[in-house]
Amino acid sequence: MNEKHTPLSQLGEFALIKELTQDFKLQQESTIKGVGDDAAVMDYKDMQTVLSTDLLIEGIHFDLSYCPLKHLGYKAVVVNLSDIYAMNAEPKQITVSIAVSNRFSVEALKELYEGIKLACEFYQVDLVGGDTTSSLKGLIISVTAIGQGKKDELVYRNGAQVGDFICVSGDLGAAYMGLQLLNREKQVFLENPNMQPQLGEHQFLVGKQLKPEARKDIVAYLKEYNIKPSAMIDVSDGLSSELLHLCTQSNVGCLIYEANVPVHNDTYNQSLEFNIDPITCALSGGEDYELLFTLSPEEEAKLNTEEIDIAVIGKIVEKDKSCLLQSRANHLHKLTAQGWNSFKE
Amino acid sequence: MNEKHTPLSQLGEFALIKELTQDFKLQQESTIKGVGDDAAVMDYKDMQTVLSTDLLIEGIHFDLSYCPLKHLGYKAVVVNLSDIYAMNAEPKQITVSIAVSNRFSVEALKELYEGIKLACEFYQVDLVGGDTTSSLKGLIISVTAIGQGKKDELVYRNGAQVGDFICVSGDLGAAYMGLQLLNREKQVFLENPNMQPQLGEHQFLVGKQLKPEARKDIVAYLKEYNIKPSAMIDVSDGLSSELLHLCTQSNVGCLIYEANVPVHNDTYNQSLEFNIDPITCALSGGEDYELLFTLSPEEEAKLNTEEIDIAVIGKIVEKDKSCLLQSRANHLHKLTAQGWNSFKE
Repeated sequence: MNEKHTPLSQLGEFALIKELTQDFKLQQESTIKGVGDDAAVMDYKDMQTVLSTDLLIEGIHFDLSYCPLKHLGYKAVVVNLSDIYAMNAEPKQITVSIAVSNRFSVEALKELYEGIKLACEFYQVDLVGGDTTSSLKGLIISVTAIGQGKKDELVYRNGAQVGDFICVSGDLGAAYMGLQLLNREKQVFLENPNMQPQLGEHQFLVGKQLKPEARKDIVAYLKEYNIKPSAMIDVSDGLSSELLHLCTQSNVGCLIYEANVPVHNDTYNQSLEFNIDPITCALSGGEDYELLFTLSPEEEAKLNTEEIDIAVIGKIVEKDKSCLLQSRANHLHKLTAQGWNSFKE
Repeated sequence: MNEKHTPLSQLGEFALIKELTQDFKLQQESTIKGVGDDAAVMDYKDMQTVLSTDLLIEGIHFDLSYCPLKHLGYKAVVVNLSDIYAMNAEPKQITVSIAVSNRFSVEALKELYEGIKLACEFYQVDLVGGDTTSSLKGLIISVTAIGQGKKDELVYRNGAQVGDFICVSGDLGAAYMGLQLLNREKQVFLENPNMQPQLGEHQFLVGKQLKPEARKDIVAYLKEYNIKPSAMIDVSDGLSSELLHLCTQSNVGCLIYEANVPVHNDTYNQSLEFNIDPITCALSGGEDYELLFTLSPEEEAKLNTEEIDIAVIGKIVEKDKSCLLQSRANHLHKLTAQGWNSFKE
């Protein structure tokens, strides 16, 4: 992080906004007006507009003791874009609002915006607005993403049909294992501040937690091969929770096979070390930001799983057959949403 | 407020969202999909999309000791819609994200959403998404509004020309006086909890603070009479600050006349009681949510100020003539932005 510590009070709100956003270049043809007026203006012509928003609170969604501000800025954007991709749409613009307490310096916020800028560049989205204010405590980030898609290309959660195949991109549970590792190292550090965190060997898992990516490539792949999912959702709260959302909204049931659920070797080994069943990480872990979608048999036939990291993990069944997981030992377990609930006591 | 106090932990996140949003009816033809998928979907056809966002923090932007939750919900929406109207556009959809600590009950949040719903109904906008999470401390509200307008009807801040008339709707400074009254009564109450607040006689000023309206009617009036402003901004931080924004972005100066700045009788009398110059309330008070705009002489000629509460307060001049206020005593004062700065120490 930068060595200077300019107090926020030294800049006014408008000077701060300018300082943070002046290096952002507009990249999208549809962006008519970005930061600096009462509102941003976009022109989508005949496309449908897609909108998603997230609110991230320090101490609830992130811990600055191990999450660098630059990574946080990147991740705050990515988790929002993931929702747009899950509509089979393309994100085009974002707004970012932040509230910060006086303990943050201008330089710290510039680190945060450096990460936001990296995400904007990588995903080719324009920062077009936001709000910058103070908080009584901690850092609060609100991100809204706008995307567009053709009417007949958008994919909702409610289109899954009996007989469809259930697919998921990448692998699951790694971000959760990364979080467990970070928490463990934080405890070690709190007990013995001279001990340096040992995270080098866990780069994959920690990276999945601190710097996740939205699966832009999966959406591009599906488009390239003219494959249209019948339903899609991004995996933010764990596979179970998302499958239940998709099935409830589509009015169907599902059967997935434990043996088919993609779990990375590092996730597998680390979860055993933590005495957690690897499938539990995948089902309930959360923050994977992979895409979960269903394909009709005709669409599934176009899929070449050798070419892209998409796994077929099960199928859609009648609603009265419920939502089940068939274990490696061929037992059937009912899926339950143990996803993240921030209101749990 | 409702008598029941259901703890948030009793409902999960999804049940809470359902509980809060199930009574909202979609009203806009352009709303294809509201709450309940990864993202909302809107179809604007050949209109341009306009987007604005605000982040409101308890203890910074509002004080729940005198702001009823229902009013707060209403105001949170209105301040955002005001930005859309300031583009000469029509708001169509909003997203509302909230973060709350455990001290809030489900019933308290329903009060908040009751106010949001009233605003949605009055301004005919659809609630199409949001995020609901917990906070470590206090209530946080993030509102994003989306609107639309025809390309040649949108009005930016940067279009004011030398010779244009400067106009403002309604009257200024009342919301600030309302805030001063609420603060005074709060102090009285804190010192003597048996003393009931005496706000009845100050209904106008307190109402302007607690339940402001966005000037939808002004935008409709301008459209009806085919009057197109050259530049427009909403007055949220006080007339001075907004005039300076408008002039800076338009690369012009301005001259306004104290005698022409509309100040309500109640505001005038109350400010004298508080030993504040009434013009100071108007220039620096903030939270008026009136519209400040410029009209070319041809457009101004179409305006009938007998019909609508629009005042012509001055004119746009060359940039090198600066931004000036001519006092009733014919002295010239340079306008300075003493608008609200949440980072001030």
